[in-house]
Amino acid sequence: MFDVAIIGLGAAGYTAAIYAARYKLSTLIVGEEEGGMGVTAAEVGNWPGDIEVSGPDLMERMKKHVQSFKEVTHKSARVVKVEKAAGGFRLQYEGGGTDESRTVIFATGSKKRQLGVAGEKEFAGKGVSYCATCDAFFYRGKTVAVVGGGDAAVEGAAILAQVAKQVYLIHRRKEFRAEPYWSNQLKEKTNVTFVLERSVKEIVGDGKVTGLALFHPFNGSDRLAVDGVFIEIGADPAVELAQQLKCALDDRGYLKVGADQQTSVPGAFAAGDVSGGSNHFAQFVTAAGEGAVAVSGVFAFLQERGA
Amino acid sequence: MFDVAIIGLGAAGYTAAIYAARYKLSTLIVGEEEGGMGVTAAEVGNWPGDIEVSGPDLMERMKKHVQSFKEVTHKSARVVKVEKAAGGFRLQYEGGGTDESRTVIFATGSKKRQLGVAGEKEFAGKGVSYCATCDAFFYRGKTVAVVGGGDAAVEGAAILAQVAKQVYLIHRRKEFRAEPYWSNQLKEKTNVTFVLERSVKEIVGDGKVTGLALFHPFNGSDRLAVDGVFIEIGADPAVELAQQLKCALDDRGYLKVGADQQTSVPGAFAAGDVSGGSNHFAQFVTAAGEGAVAVSGVFAFLQERGA
Repeated sequence: MFDVAIIGLGAAGYTAAIYAARYKLSTLIVGEEEGGMGVTAAEVGNWPGDIEVSGPDLMERMKKHVQSFKEVTHKSARVVKVEKAAGGFRLQYEGGGTDESRTVIFATGSKKRQLGVAGEKEFAGKGVSYCATCDAFFYRGKTVAVVGGGDAAVEGAAILAQVAKQVYLIHRRKEFRAEPYWSNQLKEKTNVTFVLERSVKEIVGDGKVTGLALFHPFNGSDRLAVDGVFIEIGADPAVELAQQLKCALDDRGYLKVGADQQTSVPGAFAAGDVSGGSNHFAQFVTAAGEGAVAVSGVFAFLQERGA
Repeated sequence: MFDVAIIGLGAAGYTAAIYAARYKLSTLIVGEEEGGMGVTAAEVGNWPGDIEVSGPDLMERMKKHVQSFKEVTHKSARVVKVEKAAGGFRLQYEGGGTDESRTVIFATGSKKRQLGVAGEKEFAGKGVSYCATCDAFFYRGKTVAVVGGGDAAVEGAAILAQVAKQVYLIHRRKEFRAEPYWSNQLKEKTNVTFVLERSVKEIVGDGKVTGLALFHPFNGSDRLAVDGVFIEIGADPAVELAQQLKCALDDRGYLKVGADQQTSVPGAFAAGDVSGGSNHFAQFVTAAGEGAVAVSGVFAFLQERGA
């Protein structure tokens, strides 16, 4: 039986494994995709201390860091079930096999919602982005479109308006779901154009994004020439496994956590994009911070229970 | 007038400056000691992705990262006063001079309390440590002493008991201030010895720590042979400047912050060891995470106020 089982191989999971190993906890880290969502970042830029690093390189460094500890068992497997067991939890793998652990950390991440239009996959990382906070900086003086109508889209447009020459905010409805003051502030910006009641039909380019096609013309044309398309239509946190344990969700559908990143189920913790920690600000550095806090919580939990 | 003034040059302040610059906010970062408490770590080991890096090197990398942004004004000065001003806050420097900013982030850190005994300064980083979480890992199979009677000391001893061969927990009183279950758990560990009603007179060594002297003999000797001394008698968060603004403190004396790292004073944020965020788990990676969250909060605050 492990002291802690970490499910997920992104920045939160790796950091949790590093901290757990340094506490000399017997640690299992398991997941399907090494690096998690981190590997989708072509250029990171906001990992403190690394002016230039790619997502895959940063994740590879973290993975190697984890693998430098003999306290950590690193498995590549898909966890299909998590249930309570005597003295802790039992993980069940696809294709059979189980592991048991006294505590568990869900670091299962989230999936950004996709538009599902032609060109989206082709140009992912080549002009198509799902994180304005992460990537706005690479569009200084350029023209970009933001797609969406919620807080993330409007906030993303505001961030991009600080950096880019011109921002189109494309929303399929007439009104925004975002708080009105946000969209009102945006309306006053001279470099933001609202493209309302319009939907994206296709993202076009040549090696990288050069524009997009709309279903209905805007200002006389169904084409917009842009250097980047930011798709900000929400994310789906991977809460399924935690929900098998009946871990509570917050009002946005993320795992509800206390100050120690513990979920509503004692001994079950969460870190990174799947959790509602760090004010829902999903970044490499906040995921890593939550991973560290979760292990501190795990350690206290194990001590209390008589480790 | 700056958009944001960051006070403090540690991991929290540097990370905040990086995020602020990437949001293209006009940013001031100011403080006295480059690197903050980070420079006191001889070997970090738990900064994700860097198996081996010294505190000074990590802080230097973060500083260079900050300096790579033209949006950031980097000043070396001692801030002696922070007060409200029209549209924001005014910082006053020792020796004169002021700056104004629409928002402020206190990243002023904390100071670990020292015992004030002979040998303590001489062997700092050479066997004397103020952070069991950070440094326990370097004492595998060794003999160490922990000094203190509160949660940090007892938790520190528990962490060290996982790693070290032998742990002496030295406390000047008969009872612990820490929660009883913690110390009860410790009593069951075969490699932990309680040295109660004893105080450290001197830390001795030869290039590095070899032992310590007690004021009164324990088990017949006033000497303990140890490879490391962990001084865990608390920390004093540098809240003075924030208190000039009447920012509220939490029940442990740290700056009270909301989920967005905003203090009780609108527009004034806190990040890192001075704040009560991250469940009071003071680490490079949690400080950095809080710096990022604070800037996300600053950006939202500025948008609301019509940036």
